[in-house]
Amino acid sequence: MPRPETDIAATRSRIIAAADQMIQERGAISFTMTDLATAVGMSPSNLYRFFESKDALAEAMAGEWFAELLIIMEDLVSADMPVEEKLYQFFAKRVVIKRSRYEDDPELFESYMELGDEHFEVIKGYVDLADHYMASILAEAMEKGYFKGLELDSVVSLVNTMMQPFCNPQLMMQMMHLATEERLRIVINTILSGLKADEEQAIIKPELHIAG
Amino acid sequence: MPRPETDIAATRSRIIAAADQMIQERGAISFTMTDLATAVGMSPSNLYRFFESKDALAEAMAGEWFAELLIIMEDLVSADMPVEEKLYQFFAKRVVIKRSRYEDDPELFESYMELGDEHFEVIKGYVDLADHYMASILAEAMEKGYFKGLELDSVVSLVNTMMQPFCNPQLMMQMMHLATEERLRIVINTILSGLKADEEQAIIKPELHIAG
Repeated sequence: MPRPETDIAATRSRIIAAADQMIQERGAISFTMTDLATAVGMSPSNLYRFFESKDALAEAMAGEWFAELLIIMEDLVSADMPVEEKLYQFFAKRVVIKRSRYEDDPELFESYMELGDEHFEVIKGYVDLADHYMASILAEAMEKGYFKGLELDSVVSLVNTMMQPFCNPQLMMQMMHLATEERLRIVINTILSGLKADEEQAIIKPELHIAG
Repeated sequence: MPRPETDIAATRSRIIAAADQMIQERGAISFTMTDLATAVGMSPSNLYRFFESKDALAEAMAGEWFAELLIIMEDLVSADMPVEEKLYQFFAKRVVIKRSRYEDDPELFESYMELGDEHFEVIKGYVDLADHYMASILAEAMEKGYFKGLELDSVVSLVNTMMQPFCNPQLMMQMMHLATEERLRIVINTILSGLKADEEQAIIKPELHIAG
């Protein structure tokens, strides 16, 4: 008996692999669905049965790109470990994966970044989800007394600001040599021990001193 | 009596202004010295009397781009003010200038970034000089007891890492809304109060505890 769901999944994987190879050779912007159909030996109309548009294909490719990263983030949020270590690993584990993807094939990595720029509406959901997981960990840190006088939204945005070289893949490409675990550990410690509301603001709002 | 030095300087300024307009219209990569000669109504051979190559022109344009920034940095290094404020202003004053240049003309700003990428050997001297000025201020902070257990080189590099959205103009273009003075103040305070050697390293090197 045929197992159509498995067959469909296998064909979709084969198409994605061919798309990977195509963007690796030509860059993300110049490949078309017609080129891709030729590369996998299908008619364009058959290809469109598997992916109804280049957007839908980009969505599937983004899904593969983020799958491993999402599992790491989900696992860490509920992990039983000190919040300081959790925050460190939240970045460290993903840095290791992104660095190894970059080193495996810098051109493919760059092509994926282009593909993401072209289809940012697809990427945005994943970026928001990563922020949501990070916010859970930062909220746990706030319960332990970190980030005095700041709102969670401000903490999320300030941590993202200071962590750019460890989480923005476009910037990581430029400065991968800086995104080491040793430096990451120091930056995380700096944020944990130094990030709090500006003291001059605290003078205006004296309750922040009491909270501190 | 003719004043040849002044005449030469005026003509060079006129050529640079025409080059600004050309990269604004066409992008940095596609303009040629021949196009530029036409735009300023000169023969190419006459243009080459003022700038012997596109590299030499890029160098003069970079000089104009950085002139105001260098004066700010030089003045701050020797200014009589608390080092905490000096470090804040080192970034704040330049953020204000870069943001206003960007807002005046985002496309010209982006073209200047392209020009810088094309002629990075020209830019690198200015980047190194900015690091040198920053190192002077950070060394002054170390004398006041900040950044325990870290070498100056590490401090310079870690501060650069955490300050990317406030000093990397390519990244500023993506996230100009984040590079506010209020957020900058908090990030500088975070770095001053939190940046020090990793405690686990300090256990290996106990003299760091004594220094602390």
